[in-house]
Amino acid sequence: MTVTYDVEGFYAGLVEHGLIVPVGVPGAFGRGAVFEDVLERFDALVRRVGAPEGAESITFPPIVDRRVIEKVHYLDSFPHLCGAVQSFFGDALQALALAERVNRGQDWGDLLGQTGVVLAPACCYPLYPTLAGTLPAQGRLVTLVGWAYRHEPSPEPTRMQSFRVREYIRAGSAEQVLAWRDEWLQRGLDLLRSLGLPAQTDVAADPFFGRRGKLLATNQKDQKLKFEVLVPVISLTEPTAVCSFNFHQDHFGATFGIRTAGGQVASTACLGFGLERVTMALFKMHGFRPQDWPASVRAQLWT
Amino acid sequence: MTVTYDVEGFYAGLVEHGLIVPVGVPGAFGRGAVFEDVLERFDALVRRVGAPEGAESITFPPIVDRRVIEKVHYLDSFPHLCGAVQSFFGDALQALALAERVNRGQDWGDLLGQTGVVLAPACCYPLYPTLAGTLPAQGRLVTLVGWAYRHEPSPEPTRMQSFRVREYIRAGSAEQVLAWRDEWLQRGLDLLRSLGLPAQTDVAADPFFGRRGKLLATNQKDQKLKFEVLVPVISLTEPTAVCSFNFHQDHFGATFGIRTAGGQVASTACLGFGLERVTMALFKMHGFRPQDWPASVRAQLWT
Repeated sequence: MTVTYDVEGFYAGLVEHGLIVPVGVPGAFGRGAVFEDVLERFDALVRRVGAPEGAESITFPPIVDRRVIEKVHYLDSFPHLCGAVQSFFGDALQALALAERVNRGQDWGDLLGQTGVVLAPACCYPLYPTLAGTLPAQGRLVTLVGWAYRHEPSPEPTRMQSFRVREYIRAGSAEQVLAWRDEWLQRGLDLLRSLGLPAQTDVAADPFFGRRGKLLATNQKDQKLKFEVLVPVISLTEPTAVCSFNFHQDHFGATFGIRTAGGQVASTACLGFGLERVTMALFKMHGFRPQDWPASVRAQLWT
Repeated sequence: MTVTYDVEGFYAGLVEHGLIVPVGVPGAFGRGAVFEDVLERFDALVRRVGAPEGAESITFPPIVDRRVIEKVHYLDSFPHLCGAVQSFFGDALQALALAERVNRGQDWGDLLGQTGVVLAPACCYPLYPTLAGTLPAQGRLVTLVGWAYRHEPSPEPTRMQSFRVREYIRAGSAEQVLAWRDEWLQRGLDLLRSLGLPAQTDVAADPFFGRRGKLLATNQKDQKLKFEVLVPVISLTEPTAVCSFNFHQDHFGATFGIRTAGGQVASTACLGFGLERVTMALFKMHGFRPQDWPASVRAQLWT
């Protein structure tokens, strides 16, 4: 099968086959039953691969304590991506003014006030403060799945405002954490290749804001703090990151008071499989009808 | 077993048994593995009960097009519960001012602007615009599960800012929709009672804002537009709504151009099982250790 690359054709194909359901804003579409089935099966496959490590499991809602985002200086680096939750704190008269503004079709955001929560830009943010204190000798390993938010509306289907990530988070000594990260980098690559995806790893940088951000990105790449696994979905020359591996050094350990059994400030790392992106990569590579996918791929997902 | 009722004791018990993991803000806690297992098993039970109806399945992210919330006049009635998503649209200098504000520990919400999305106050809001057009003769039936947001931070564990609901949504003629709603009202009651929960139904009203809201609530009750299934979780005298059944008349049909096969404006209704609330009701009724639950309850969930 020859795979061709264009944004519009791929999006149209996903819609036509009922895999995604368009809504009025970009990057917030519904997922059809078949899309969701593949996504859940891939997530289950990742969990089977990760099962021998015996990670603890926690589920967080898509929101996070605003102070967590403030403490980790998220707004210094990614103000343009944040999704702060605001609500209405006024009285009856102000409520009337709000309703009038809305019903006149005018912006009404300035009549709201900040709540105590922000949409989680990555599903693991709520976890770090809960790791405060002294870790056991072997450190901690947690897995979670959740919805992440990034304010980057785009017609490109793999660039969503809201998407799910299966994450694994490791806290311990720098040696423990890095050894674990390296193992999973290979494991993630093998897993995606076993599904017939032409996956490659690369050193990567986060999409820091502005000119100062370019320096931060260069620094992050120089220190090899972020790796991605990439698969062509929208373009052959600019493959899509479907997995990312982030070494935080002792950034979260120092911020939230996480210490190793030996009393040092703990290091942390996280890795995440972008569930919608992997699902889209599978539809891109093998076609829109899972019943026609290669037997070797189906055998892994439909066990 | 004697069940006693107090907020602090129940919350402490949930935490002590690792069922929920506190975070820095109320109503946004993590769910432990055992809590999540029970929740997923209850959701699977609902889907088994609903399976013969053959509902279509769609999954939406926790956000919804802001215009949907505007068009249905949500802000007229529930401004205090809304969670609007705001982000940063400024330049490098403004980003610096934002970061300074954050790092000085001051509010920074006024430096943001409104995005095109709002947190879904109920998981079914994104669905209605996608039903636009003429329905088939038998109408439409859709099921979905998702995260809903309500800005009502509270130390009371069943009152969450972010929670999941398994919903069924019916669109068709008023007769089709009401007959379906009545069937599910009985089905929901039977289902919860079969799990040993002392469930009762009652006519209910939404928590409309302000003094005008009281009139709307009275009107809603008089017209029997909303029913709830309630189970004591926090208090014996004020049981908690774990299920709600809402008849929207032709409100969404008229707003989004949904028509019956006969050309009339369609009616819609939705019902939702509050997944965390039912899970908490089970822990309240049968104790914090599922392995000790009555065999008749376990048989339904651990099939």
